[in-house]
Amino acid sequence: MPVNLSAPEAQQLHPVKGLALGIAEAHIKKPNRKDLLVIKLSPGTKVAGVFTKNRFCAAPVILCKEHLAQSPARQEITALVVNTGNANAGTGEEGLHRAKQTCVALAELLDCEVGAILPFSTGVILEPLPVDRILAGLPQAVADLREDNWLRAAEAIMTTDIVAKGVSKQIFLGGQTITITGIAKGSGMIHPNMATMLGYIATDAAISQATLDDIIQYAVNRSFNCITVDGDTSTNDSLIIMATGQSGLAEITTDNTDYAVIRQAITEVAIQLAQAIVRDGEGATKFMTVKVEAGRDEAECRKVAYAISHSPLIKTAFFASDPNLGRILAAIGYAGIDDLDVNTLQLYLGDVLVAEHGGRAISYEEAQGVAVMKEPEITVRVVLNRGSAEATVWTCDFSYDYVKINADYRS
Amino acid sequence: MPVNLSAPEAQQLHPVKGLALGIAEAHIKKPNRKDLLVIKLSPGTKVAGVFTKNRFCAAPVILCKEHLAQSPARQEITALVVNTGNANAGTGEEGLHRAKQTCVALAELLDCEVGAILPFSTGVILEPLPVDRILAGLPQAVADLREDNWLRAAEAIMTTDIVAKGVSKQIFLGGQTITITGIAKGSGMIHPNMATMLGYIATDAAISQATLDDIIQYAVNRSFNCITVDGDTSTNDSLIIMATGQSGLAEITTDNTDYAVIRQAITEVAIQLAQAIVRDGEGATKFMTVKVEAGRDEAECRKVAYAISHSPLIKTAFFASDPNLGRILAAIGYAGIDDLDVNTLQLYLGDVLVAEHGGRAISYEEAQGVAVMKEPEITVRVVLNRGSAEATVWTCDFSYDYVKINADYRS
Repeated sequence: MPVNLSAPEAQQLHPVKGLALGIAEAHIKKPNRKDLLVIKLSPGTKVAGVFTKNRFCAAPVILCKEHLAQSPARQEITALVVNTGNANAGTGEEGLHRAKQTCVALAELLDCEVGAILPFSTGVILEPLPVDRILAGLPQAVADLREDNWLRAAEAIMTTDIVAKGVSKQIFLGGQTITITGIAKGSGMIHPNMATMLGYIATDAAISQATLDDIIQYAVNRSFNCITVDGDTSTNDSLIIMATGQSGLAEITTDNTDYAVIRQAITEVAIQLAQAIVRDGEGATKFMTVKVEAGRDEAECRKVAYAISHSPLIKTAFFASDPNLGRILAAIGYAGIDDLDVNTLQLYLGDVLVAEHGGRAISYEEAQGVAVMKEPEITVRVVLNRGSAEATVWTCDFSYDYVKINADYRS
Repeated sequence: MPVNLSAPEAQQLHPVKGLALGIAEAHIKKPNRKDLLVIKLSPGTKVAGVFTKNRFCAAPVILCKEHLAQSPARQEITALVVNTGNANAGTGEEGLHRAKQTCVALAELLDCEVGAILPFSTGVILEPLPVDRILAGLPQAVADLREDNWLRAAEAIMTTDIVAKGVSKQIFLGGQTITITGIAKGSGMIHPNMATMLGYIATDAAISQATLDDIIQYAVNRSFNCITVDGDTSTNDSLIIMATGQSGLAEITTDNTDYAVIRQAITEVAIQLAQAIVRDGEGATKFMTVKVEAGRDEAECRKVAYAISHSPLIKTAFFASDPNLGRILAAIGYAGIDDLDVNTLQLYLGDVLVAEHGGRAISYEEAQGVAVMKEPEITVRVVLNRGSAEATVWTCDFSYDYVKINADYRS
């Protein structure tokens, strides 16, 4: 079960003025489930996106990048369309054709250019997209468009997710209430650059295109690029941030004093969504924060944090609540810092110093480690003592259920 | 259960003249099991070793390197001592002291220099080595020294191994029978450079020191550095090759026509031992050969082979006999070849072409993939079509039992 995570209430997800969401049950893979989402944007909405770096990226990812590039000011994006049940990845030319068919059909329904549609797919790879079912479902989704549909939208993009993921917050700027609401999906194949995830965050603030492009990079580097479940990088990862500009507040640019505030608020929503993905990690029973401090640069801190976060040996020991800390030392040792002096670093489990001087701390008693390991949220902290850089990665443990879920996924 | 692997019969492991093995039950971690091994070498035996690159390498690894370095011709190594049940890693200064105590005690028993002893440990990390039990067990092991003790020696170095691993072959050179016999242990924490493994290979051929140093690098690069179970690199990995020179055949050097023959024979023993470790991989039900061909260089072929071999998503799908081939495409895509053109590569499962032109091959039918996946030995072949280099990695699937074994290991 997800670690300290439950689905939001519908009323907790504040509508974002100028953005409507419509859902359909299109029977893409299974009947009687929401599996198609259309997000319609009011004219002038600014849109920014970041996408998977996987070379086998999905057909919709290719089209999204094309459509965003054709629309340099990105004010001409009219709608997004998301299907679950099929990733349309590893589908070659025919896959591209079917993704484009989806865009054409939605553009006709909404009376806009084909290039004003951004398509997204998530689900099984290497299977042909059942595009006819999507086309048949689109009118139902469009008829359903409403501003207060965020929770149902979060449910419509779930695949192996147990819990729908949505986060909303409001801030006050220049006498106005600004809303930021986001939804995401993902629970396996999670790795930075990016997780197997789809994320959509919207605000009613007006934000210049260049500023939105800055904000998305800032936010993704501190959220979705800091999580891992199993080290696999998906073919379909996409994060989109949209600013409808309907709040009445003047446009925010990087020169504006509101810039840092809105950037921070969007980043916090992104972090909560990213952590929700880990909390709902396939088979997760524990939420782990791996913090590496006092490194020479962020890159080496991330190397160590990921070596720990990816190790099946460590993740299974956390599943068993077993403070088998030697496995963490081993991971630090093979993380790839060639000149690491293992005698000068400290390893903490929670607040407990467990290792220093190349071995177990004299003060450490097994009972302390056992106590920390029983908690559902555990922090592993490594102090390298060779600089002032740091990095944090969030991950989860590795249980029988991870194997079960992934061995059964297609059946 | 191990995949197509059973323990050798005692008589299949030919003695190597000039090398004796003695075993004791020293109760290092548990009673009534063989857990201490002494290997005694006749004078003049040449010894070469390669060791883990983990920065947190174990105390015995540090001592082994020191003793081999102090003995440049490496003819002065008299004996090896191996304990299971405790890795003596992450144990700081005290761990080094205890490893040295072991060497001192064995040197006294065998009347040799302390630097003529090579110590090895394997088992749990970060726990103090119970050196008193080792010292108490050494006389029993020395009293047991015999040339035909290879199988019992293989049993004595097992930890989570289900099956004892030993390989022996004989070749005929210059009218003489040359014997090569080796044993190894390891089944989890298996990753290149090197696996969590201990390996000891001996021959009665006479081989010059420089030639033996060449041979060990050649052999390890084609065997133990081509396997992975879970991507973790141990603190204790060690491979030792010994040439007693007792066969009567003249010394082999790199100029000698026998050089390629003996090198190949030793490499074959190393490959069989390395594959045995994967076949006995923790929880393994399938043996996977991942072959990447027609790459620009070996490095990029290895990147792709390891991306496939490390993916928990792929390994759980193989466990389920599910030809979820999209996961393999995804791994190829994130392997790190930035300019990879996914439209020009082919993916084969066994002999079946499953993907090309960026998607599923037109000729492919699911039933073909299912048939291949039911076999206990499966080859995944990726043809990159961008050069002439290739690389092979051997790995296993990822099952419930992997989680069970590693969640329970310390209890």
